[in-house]
Amino acid sequence: MPKAKRQDSTVLTDDELTSLNAHWRAANYLSAGQIYLMANPLLKEELRPEHIKPRLLGHWGTSPGLNLVHTHLNRVIKARGRDTVCIWGPGHGGPSVLANSWLEGSYTETYPDVTRDEAGMERLFRQFSFPGGVPSHVAPETPGSIHEGGELGYALAHAYGAALDNPGLLVACVIGDGEAETGPLAASWHSNKLLDPVHDGAVLPILHLNGYKIANPTFLARLPESELDELLRGYGHEPIHVSGDDPMTVHRALAAALDQALDRIDRAQRAAREDGATERPRWPVIVLRTPKGWTGPGEVDGQQVEGTWRSHQVPLAGVRENPEHLRQLEQWLRSYRPQELFDEHGRPREQVLACIPEGDRRLGATPHANGGLLVRELPMPGLERFAVPVDKPGATMHEPTKVLGGFVEQIMKATRERRDFRVVGPDETESNRLGAVYGATGKAWQAEVLPSDEHLSRHGRVMEILSEHLCQGWLEGYLLTGRHGLFSCYEAFAHIVDSMVNQHIKWLRTSRQLSWRAPIASLNYLLTSHVWRQDHNGFSHQDPGFVDHVLNKSPEVVRVYLPPDANTLLSVADHVLRSRDYVNVIVAGKQPCFDWLSMDEARVHCARGAGIWEWAGTENGGREPDVVLACAGDVPTQEVLAAAGLLRRHLPDLAVRVVNVIDIARLMPREEHPHGMSDFEFDGLFTRDKPVIFAYHGYPWLIHRLAYRRAGHHNVHVRGYKERGTTTTPFDMVVSNDMDRYRLVMDVVDRVPGLAVRAAAVRQEMADARTRHHDWIRAHGVDMPEVAEWTWAG
Amino acid sequence: MPKAKRQDSTVLTDDELTSLNAHWRAANYLSAGQIYLMANPLLKEELRPEHIKPRLLGHWGTSPGLNLVHTHLNRVIKARGRDTVCIWGPGHGGPSVLANSWLEGSYTETYPDVTRDEAGMERLFRQFSFPGGVPSHVAPETPGSIHEGGELGYALAHAYGAALDNPGLLVACVIGDGEAETGPLAASWHSNKLLDPVHDGAVLPILHLNGYKIANPTFLARLPESELDELLRGYGHEPIHVSGDDPMTVHRALAAALDQALDRIDRAQRAAREDGATERPRWPVIVLRTPKGWTGPGEVDGQQVEGTWRSHQVPLAGVRENPEHLRQLEQWLRSYRPQELFDEHGRPREQVLACIPEGDRRLGATPHANGGLLVRELPMPGLERFAVPVDKPGATMHEPTKVLGGFVEQIMKATRERRDFRVVGPDETESNRLGAVYGATGKAWQAEVLPSDEHLSRHGRVMEILSEHLCQGWLEGYLLTGRHGLFSCYEAFAHIVDSMVNQHIKWLRTSRQLSWRAPIASLNYLLTSHVWRQDHNGFSHQDPGFVDHVLNKSPEVVRVYLPPDANTLLSVADHVLRSRDYVNVIVAGKQPCFDWLSMDEARVHCARGAGIWEWAGTENGGREPDVVLACAGDVPTQEVLAAAGLLRRHLPDLAVRVVNVIDIARLMPREEHPHGMSDFEFDGLFTRDKPVIFAYHGYPWLIHRLAYRRAGHHNVHVRGYKERGTTTTPFDMVVSNDMDRYRLVMDVVDRVPGLAVRAAAVRQEMADARTRHHDWIRAHGVDMPEVAEWTWAG
Repeated sequence: MPKAKRQDSTVLTDDELTSLNAHWRAANYLSAGQIYLMANPLLKEELRPEHIKPRLLGHWGTSPGLNLVHTHLNRVIKARGRDTVCIWGPGHGGPSVLANSWLEGSYTETYPDVTRDEAGMERLFRQFSFPGGVPSHVAPETPGSIHEGGELGYALAHAYGAALDNPGLLVACVIGDGEAETGPLAASWHSNKLLDPVHDGAVLPILHLNGYKIANPTFLARLPESELDELLRGYGHEPIHVSGDDPMTVHRALAAALDQALDRIDRAQRAAREDGATERPRWPVIVLRTPKGWTGPGEVDGQQVEGTWRSHQVPLAGVRENPEHLRQLEQWLRSYRPQELFDEHGRPREQVLACIPEGDRRLGATPHANGGLLVRELPMPGLERFAVPVDKPGATMHEPTKVLGGFVEQIMKATRERRDFRVVGPDETESNRLGAVYGATGKAWQAEVLPSDEHLSRHGRVMEILSEHLCQGWLEGYLLTGRHGLFSCYEAFAHIVDSMVNQHIKWLRTSRQLSWRAPIASLNYLLTSHVWRQDHNGFSHQDPGFVDHVLNKSPEVVRVYLPPDANTLLSVADHVLRSRDYVNVIVAGKQPCFDWLSMDEARVHCARGAGIWEWAGTENGGREPDVVLACAGDVPTQEVLAAAGLLRRHLPDLAVRVVNVIDIARLMPREEHPHGMSDFEFDGLFTRDKPVIFAYHGYPWLIHRLAYRRAGHHNVHVRGYKERGTTTTPFDMVVSNDMDRYRLVMDVVDRVPGLAVRAAAVRQEMADARTRHHDWIRAHGVDMPEVAEWTWAG
Repeated sequence: MPKAKRQDSTVLTDDELTSLNAHWRAANYLSAGQIYLMANPLLKEELRPEHIKPRLLGHWGTSPGLNLVHTHLNRVIKARGRDTVCIWGPGHGGPSVLANSWLEGSYTETYPDVTRDEAGMERLFRQFSFPGGVPSHVAPETPGSIHEGGELGYALAHAYGAALDNPGLLVACVIGDGEAETGPLAASWHSNKLLDPVHDGAVLPILHLNGYKIANPTFLARLPESELDELLRGYGHEPIHVSGDDPMTVHRALAAALDQALDRIDRAQRAAREDGATERPRWPVIVLRTPKGWTGPGEVDGQQVEGTWRSHQVPLAGVRENPEHLRQLEQWLRSYRPQELFDEHGRPREQVLACIPEGDRRLGATPHANGGLLVRELPMPGLERFAVPVDKPGATMHEPTKVLGGFVEQIMKATRERRDFRVVGPDETESNRLGAVYGATGKAWQAEVLPSDEHLSRHGRVMEILSEHLCQGWLEGYLLTGRHGLFSCYEAFAHIVDSMVNQHIKWLRTSRQLSWRAPIASLNYLLTSHVWRQDHNGFSHQDPGFVDHVLNKSPEVVRVYLPPDANTLLSVADHVLRSRDYVNVIVAGKQPCFDWLSMDEARVHCARGAGIWEWAGTENGGREPDVVLACAGDVPTQEVLAAAGLLRRHLPDLAVRVVNVIDIARLMPREEHPHGMSDFEFDGLFTRDKPVIFAYHGYPWLIHRLAYRRAGHHNVHVRGYKERGTTTTPFDMVVSNDMDRYRLVMDVVDRVPGLAVRAAAVRQEMADARTRHHDWIRAHGVDMPEVAEWTWAG
């Protein structure tokens, strides 16, 4: 470990230095205490095995470094009076963030039973990683956090999301050198190309190179420093190095580095805000090299631990059984001299607390890390302005996402001053036909602009980058700090963020159970350019499985909507943008699509989530239908209605019911999802014993998985996407996957008792039509006119 | 667009230059032709609307740049006689790769009906993006490709995977500036830290900055060049720039750049191989700036197209209807002077073909891009050496993945000379208890080594980086070029590569249908550190949904195994490592687990995929059981056996059958998955009408989705993970999710007709036990001894 290199210009007085070091020692003591102790928190007695937790679970290695950063952030926040939030990338170091929150008092304010005294300290220690206690990572339960530190990769994207439209905010972001190896983190560095120094806050990355991951050295820690500097400069940053293993030297250097970084940030913001500078600033990054497991046991059982990967979790593992380990632990804990740090009642002494800022400025108390406290209702325009007129179902067509674009534009306009709404997308906002939004704002862009460019803007609120990870990470950070947004994405590539949305759902699930966490705006996906219309792209772009993925997760949080036309999409969008603490997934097409429902009808249908389209069926009055044609999704709805039309023509005495499902969770049992229908409702829609032919947008098994408990489930026959895809025509896609109108009619004939014989000719006619279409498409490269020109005849 | 800057030292003769340019023009002509024409391929007649495809689908923008690279790779391959494979990152430019393959003859060799003459050219044009034809992207159907160019992000990781253990191979990799914004690509640059200049081949990244994505400028194209250079140097590369829009100048510069790059690579390899140099070389990267849509229409309808994002797909969209567009298209196509490039029979002229290398050296013909031609059987050791002895079920415990580690070590040893087997993992090989492998090889590492490091090796074949994306990408590239591997990963974080595995499954599904693509080794996942044993990590690390994700995909390709103990894990691993063209997912624990089956029994059980464990049940002879206890996964198996033990004790006259499922697709109908059981087999195992209590490793709905068609499905009651997780004890986890032994016994009481009354006291006892455990765990922080010490009593 090299010695600290940079001599500082910040003059810390001896008192300040002593006090900073005392705070750091206290945080280190409390971090180690949480991992090991369940009693004797102040070491008033000699340490005995019964004071030690029976299972030692936690991560020490990163904690002293996080404590160091926390201590020094306290100093600069207090000195500069600057609102700050910190993203703790190495959230495995949960003990550290908890320790600091307890020290500054925010923990006790949040959890009054964990008092800032000896009893509270014992509780703090005991509850950590203990059944019924708190998780070992930074988590929703942790005051001051918006970033679960379990899965790695998203710290810096979250930091940028928090900084957007928060001009007064400093977002510090500790990036572990393990996390820095992930793809999402590696891409996040370029977020600074979109950061507006006028309207956005600042992000200060602190790259913490403690050198090791779980069991390996890290890539960045082993680069020659000159190469690392080139990399960071290439990312658009100016590196400031702090390295060392002597605490006092490192304290001095880190204090100086932070002052230098914040001065640089101040200058950049002033230049942009006051002097009208338009050049992208070279923002600072602090590179902090300190030993992994610093101040912990240097050697255990003859092997080096401090400064290596061996300190990653619990450096002394056998404390309860091994007296030498116990002795080493006691020596380690006493090395912090707890009696100097806490009074006899366990209260932190004044010197320890001297660096801590006041009130909401404390990192554990900032409302920016509890965004629900800040969130405001979005100014939502009336839907009528954007609704498409529908006098008769299926007589006109619109591109649903394009209609939605006008609505989104209006929200953008209405938030022009407030700046609390953003649209993110992986270079697809225009492709997804939301381009109207550029009437209200541009695309964020701080790099070079050429005359041929369109809609680029230094102050724009549309965020575009070819990275679903960054779109997701930015939006999460933005929402968690109390703002609103919409993520539009090609359906297939939402899977890129499967793991991220898992973590966000887990976060929401947990935070909903915490009374002190105020509800935040929902994370809203618009999945478009979907599986059925990948005319340009083919098989690689066909995957409707994101819905399956999220529906495995906490039903308290997850909502999935498949609006079949423009007006229902508007109504759904209006609903989800007003909602809180959900992950809403909307699947809707961008291609021209029949308008089925008027705005009033759409509202009612969306509120019900599923319903009978009487005008489309041929039921006569009270008796049950012979067959139910159900549909969910725009293309399935079109095919089902076409099938209903064919049945009306060919089998006019058959009583056909058409059911459209827009809120897919309605199919689930009420006990499994809050939107689930009662069996009574379900049977009322789908009958208990009639054949149900269900055309579903995605993988057909999903419908079975949702509806398997229903009385009529064994009669449900589902058609959907079954991985039969390529570059072909829209109708060929539905034919290839057996979801076309003709196939659906054949299914009806096959499933309705008695029809097989009576309707054999109809069935044959349908089969012939499929062959005719297949041959035509291969010969002409387009769908037959009878499909292209089909309209619902009623 | 700046002029070409670098004056070359490569002296191209005028003939060479003319010939290279002819090849490029021909490729450009053929690329545009594929997008537009279905007749009149040589423009022998004036262009008329009926020559134009009715739907214009494809991506022109990137194609001229890809053609340029292809032309120049041809030159250096021929000049240097070097085996080369190219990864075409911007695979949207499918027309380009197809055009080049047709020019060099490899296309006709692969698809003899697409002849290298006028008729073949017409077929080449017509089939592109046409129903029944070929996809618009580079795809498995494309000769010379191992990289589907649909989803972006994985080009460079694939390139490194191809280069590993291929010392004679050059892997060129074209990276689009759109793709460069993705996380996986951004992280991939650091792959060079693991590339062994002695045993691995070279990767030459060609960063193609054409400046635009779908609708936006790209980040990297708009960096100041000095900043881009810093970035690339920070990635460990030496940039070589080629920029311009004058073809002859760019030809000269690119030829020089390629020579310079290959000379540099040769020097680095010689230094390492002959002179024993150990310093990591600074590998070259070519930065190629040419206009997007170069040589296409400059302006359309008054808007600039060439050199902007507007050339991304089809620059002239209205050709069939708009005479002016038709005229422009004809002018554009004739600008390549096709009559100079092709003879009157449509055969490419000699000058066009002059730069093309011979035989297998052609990029469309290299066997490295059809890895099944090169793959060899792995030398598999006998399992007996590694098997754990099992005289009696449940009497001993082993850590299954640790046992597997010995087996993997032996394969590593047996491939020491061949070097065609690698283990990849995101810093988890040791954590996942496969550390024995270090007895055979080290961890690949070309950076600084400190004395405290362990198992790092310049020539190691274990690949560790904290990026699931890179692990997956490297392994895919390695397998696709004919080698073998194993990816061990924390179960929850396999979701990080959901989208990547989608693409690989799609690739395999398609390539299995192509007779010329020889089968490659399967992609094998070992998912461990699973949902039930996240003692250190808690909720964020709990997600068993990867299995659900892959089981939605092509059943021809996907296999999922849940071995319940060490010997079954060995048998499954042995099977999957011998298999071809599958994606195999193994879920297995690393924690101590009961040994249930001897090696012989394990082999039989694995071959069957599911079976009755007679020794665990209480059936007497022929009659059907009263209840079936089914299990899949190690923890569920343990709980089911404990429940069976409780039932034996408390309800000795109840006939209980225990069924273990190891191959989860066995539950599916035979028509839906090749491993699916017949209904006869299913009913034989699970009965048609008895209650089935099924303890499953993951989300319970999966079992319903797989088995919903079975006669007895309505009797199946599934317990599994339902997102009730935190940092707690192992038994508390199963209790929280209602999958514990007591709950299973209660389920039996609730479901077996007549038992509710007769066994009410037993049920109460079980409920009390759950409460007792819950309270004990919260008080003591560990499981009760009766769980910790439980063994199967038979």
